[in-house]
Amino acid sequence: MNAIEVIQAKRDGHRLSDEQIDWVVDAYTRGDVADEQMAALAMAILLNGMDAAEIARWTQAMIDSGEVLRFGDVGRPLVDKHSTGGVGDKITLPLAPLVAACGAAVPQLSGRGLGHTGGTLDKLEAITGWRASLSEEEIRAQLAEVGAVVCATTPTLAPADRKLYALRDVTGTVESIPLIASSIMSKKIAEGTDGLVLDVKVGSGAFMKTPERARELAETMVAIGSAHGLATTALLTDMSVPLGRAVGNALEVAESVDVLRGGGPADVVELTVALAREMLALAGITGADPAQVLASGKAYEVWERMITAQGGDPSAPLPTAAHVEELVADRSGVLTRLDALAVGVAAWRLGAGRARKEDAVQAAAGIRLLVDVGDEVEAGQPLLELHTDTPDAVTGARAALDGGVVVSDEPVHRRTLLLDAIRP
Amino acid sequence: MNAIEVIQAKRDGHRLSDEQIDWVVDAYTRGDVADEQMAALAMAILLNGMDAAEIARWTQAMIDSGEVLRFGDVGRPLVDKHSTGGVGDKITLPLAPLVAACGAAVPQLSGRGLGHTGGTLDKLEAITGWRASLSEEEIRAQLAEVGAVVCATTPTLAPADRKLYALRDVTGTVESIPLIASSIMSKKIAEGTDGLVLDVKVGSGAFMKTPERARELAETMVAIGSAHGLATTALLTDMSVPLGRAVGNALEVAESVDVLRGGGPADVVELTVALAREMLALAGITGADPAQVLASGKAYEVWERMITAQGGDPSAPLPTAAHVEELVADRSGVLTRLDALAVGVAAWRLGAGRARKEDAVQAAAGIRLLVDVGDEVEAGQPLLELHTDTPDAVTGARAALDGGVVVSDEPVHRRTLLLDAIRP
Repeated sequence: MNAIEVIQAKRDGHRLSDEQIDWVVDAYTRGDVADEQMAALAMAILLNGMDAAEIARWTQAMIDSGEVLRFGDVGRPLVDKHSTGGVGDKITLPLAPLVAACGAAVPQLSGRGLGHTGGTLDKLEAITGWRASLSEEEIRAQLAEVGAVVCATTPTLAPADRKLYALRDVTGTVESIPLIASSIMSKKIAEGTDGLVLDVKVGSGAFMKTPERARELAETMVAIGSAHGLATTALLTDMSVPLGRAVGNALEVAESVDVLRGGGPADVVELTVALAREMLALAGITGADPAQVLASGKAYEVWERMITAQGGDPSAPLPTAAHVEELVADRSGVLTRLDALAVGVAAWRLGAGRARKEDAVQAAAGIRLLVDVGDEVEAGQPLLELHTDTPDAVTGARAALDGGVVVSDEPVHRRTLLLDAIRP
Repeated sequence: MNAIEVIQAKRDGHRLSDEQIDWVVDAYTRGDVADEQMAALAMAILLNGMDAAEIARWTQAMIDSGEVLRFGDVGRPLVDKHSTGGVGDKITLPLAPLVAACGAAVPQLSGRGLGHTGGTLDKLEAITGWRASLSEEEIRAQLAEVGAVVCATTPTLAPADRKLYALRDVTGTVESIPLIASSIMSKKIAEGTDGLVLDVKVGSGAFMKTPERARELAETMVAIGSAHGLATTALLTDMSVPLGRAVGNALEVAESVDVLRGGGPADVVELTVALAREMLALAGITGADPAQVLASGKAYEVWERMITAQGGDPSAPLPTAAHVEELVADRSGVLTRLDALAVGVAAWRLGAGRARKEDAVQAAAGIRLLVDVGDEVEAGQPLLELHTDTPDAVTGARAALDGGVVVSDEPVHRRTLLLDAIRP
C-alpha cells in the first residue's frame, strides 16, 4: 500500500477500498503519510466525493486512531448534542443541565471557538474558577452524580481527526461534507454516547450557507450514526440571525442563566426545549416535559451543581467589559436585517473570539442586541451594545456591522428557527 | 494575498489571476507557502484545469523564480529539442551533433532518468571521462566552438519547477497537462534558446498513453512557446515499441555512434532526421540536408569534438555487462508484440534505470533487441539479450517482459513512427 496509489484512486474518481482507508488514516496519524500527501488526498476527496460506505469506514478509521471512552453504567442513559456552530449559540449551557434534570446523562465534550463562532469552553471559562479539563474518571463520576458534564475533549479521542483538521484548515479543504461529517461523528462516536442530536445550522452565520448543503451534511451525519449503531437525529435550524440577544462569552453565560431560571429570549428557550425533546426521545425518557422542567427551576439546580463540580462559582459576578458603547439607528423604521455573520465578526473583533488557536479571548467582550428583527425603532435609538476591554477594536467591529444591521421600511420576514428534522 | 484563498479559487473552479499566480509560485519557492498548501493547489489544478492564459503566466512565474541564461551571439542560431521520454530514446545523442554539423547551435540541457525511461546524462556518462556539469561560460564557449552541448541543467534555472516537480512526484499530481507543460517549457524558455522542437511520445512506453492526451500536451506546450515568443514545433511520435534495438546506457551510446557513422536502425535514423529538419527550419537554415550530412560522417566529427570538449574519450571502449543472457521465442511464428513499457521496466530492473533520484545506474545494463516486430522467428530463437552486472536482477526483468514480448500467428501492424506535427 502506498500513499500515491490511494491519492491517484480518489483523484481518478474511484472508490477507496476499506483497506486503503484504514491504511491511509493510520499511516497519516503515525506520520508515514506526509502532510502534503494527505493535503492532495483531501482536495481529491473534496472535489470527487466519497460515498456513504467510504465515509462510514473513514469515520471508523479516525475513531480507531485513538481511544474510545467507555463510561459504563452511570445509572442513566447517555445522550449528547453537537452544534455545527453559530453566532450566540450558547444552547449547550442551558441544555445539558435541562436534559440531566429530566433524567438522562449528558457527556458534552466540547471545543474552543475559532473565527466568528464562539466555543462552549470559552463561554464557561468566563465563570470564576471553572475548569475545562477533566480526567475520564472525573467525567464518569460527574455523569453519575450530577448527570451533566461540559468539558474539553480528551487528546486521546480521534487523534487522526485533530491532525487532519489542522491540515484542512490551512489547505482550503475544510468545506468537504464527507470530511466535515466524519470529523464530527468520529469524535462523538469515540465519546461513547448512546444517542446523539445534531443541531445543523444554516444561514449567513453558519458554516453551511444554504439549506441544501446543511441538509446534505445532516443526512450524511445521520447515516454515519446509523452505520455505527449510534441513534442520531439532526435538526436543521436557522442561523441567519444571532441566537438570543447576547453574543460573547460572559454575556452568553448570563443569558443562559436567565433561561435556566425560566426567563431569557424566546428563541433560545424554543431551541433548547426542542433539542431536549429530541435527546430525551433518543434516551427513551418519556415522563418529563422539558418546557415545564425549565420553567420550574430544576434545570438551574443541576447547572449550579455542574458548575460547582468543575470548580466554578455559579454565584460569582461575571466579568464586565472596561468599555461599552452603543450602535444607534441611523433612521426611523423597522429593524429589517440583523445579520448573524456581521454580528459574529464584530464580536470576534471586539475580543470575544480568536483568529488563531494560540490566541486568548476576552471573557467580557461581545455584543448585546437591544431590539429584535421586526421591531420598530426611532432614529438615534440604541440597537446594539458593543462590549470590549480594548476600545481600539470598536472601529473594526463597527466596520463589520456596516450593512449587516439595517433599519428600513421594507417588509420583514421573521425567521423560522426550526427548519426540519432528519431521522434515520 | 494568502495561500488558502488561492487554493479555494482554483478548488471552486475559478481562474487564478496573474497576481495570484505570481504570488503563489514565488511564495512557494521562498517557503512561505507550505508543501501541503501547494499539494492541495496542485490537485485542484489537476482536477479543475487552467486555461491558456493561466498556463502561460504560471510558466512565466516559474521562469522568474530563477535565472534566465543569455548565451548572446555564439555565431549560429540556437535551437533545442525536448523529448517527453521513452524507451530506447537516445535521439539526442546523434541529433545534437547532426544539427550542429548543419550549422545551428544546440544547447541541450538535460536530466537524468527516473523509472522506466532513461536519461540522456546517464547514457553519456557511460563514456569514460565525460562530465555532465558545465558552467554557463563553458556552455557558451562550447556552443561557439563545437556547436553542440549536452549537459546538466543548472540549479539556477526555474528552481520553482524543481521544487514543485519533487512535490508532485509524491502527491499523485504529476499527471496534469498544465503542470507538465509549464514544467517543461519553463526550463526550456529559461535556457535561452531561439527555437524549440518537442518530441511528444505516445504509447505504452510514454508518459502519455493515448494520442488525445499527447496531442493536448503538445498543443499546450506550443501555445506556451507562442505566448513567450519562442518558436516551437511539436512532433507526435510513437512509443508503443522501443526506439532502435538498444535500451540501456552504454548500449544506446553504441547504437548512437552507429547512426552517426551512417548506419544504425532505420527508426532511429528516421526520427533523428525528422527532428533535425524541424530544428533547422526553426533556425532558418535551408541549405543543409540532414539525411546527407548524417550519411557523410560530418555529424560524427562533431560528436567526437562534443564528447572530447566535456572530458570524454570517444574512442575508449564502452563498458560491457558482467552477465548476458537471452530471452528465446517459446514458439515459431511472427513477433507481434514488443511492448515499450515491458522492455523499459525490464531494462530498469536489470540496472539501467533508477527508482529514486539518489540511486546509481549501471552503465552496461540493458536490453538488446535482436528481432523487429513483424519478423518471422523459430521456436528457441533468441529475441532479446539481457545485460546486467547483477544476475539476481534477471528474474525480475523476465517477469516484466512476460506478456510484453509475444510470438503468434496474428497479423501485425508495423508502427507508424511519425504521427503528426503541431505548429503554432
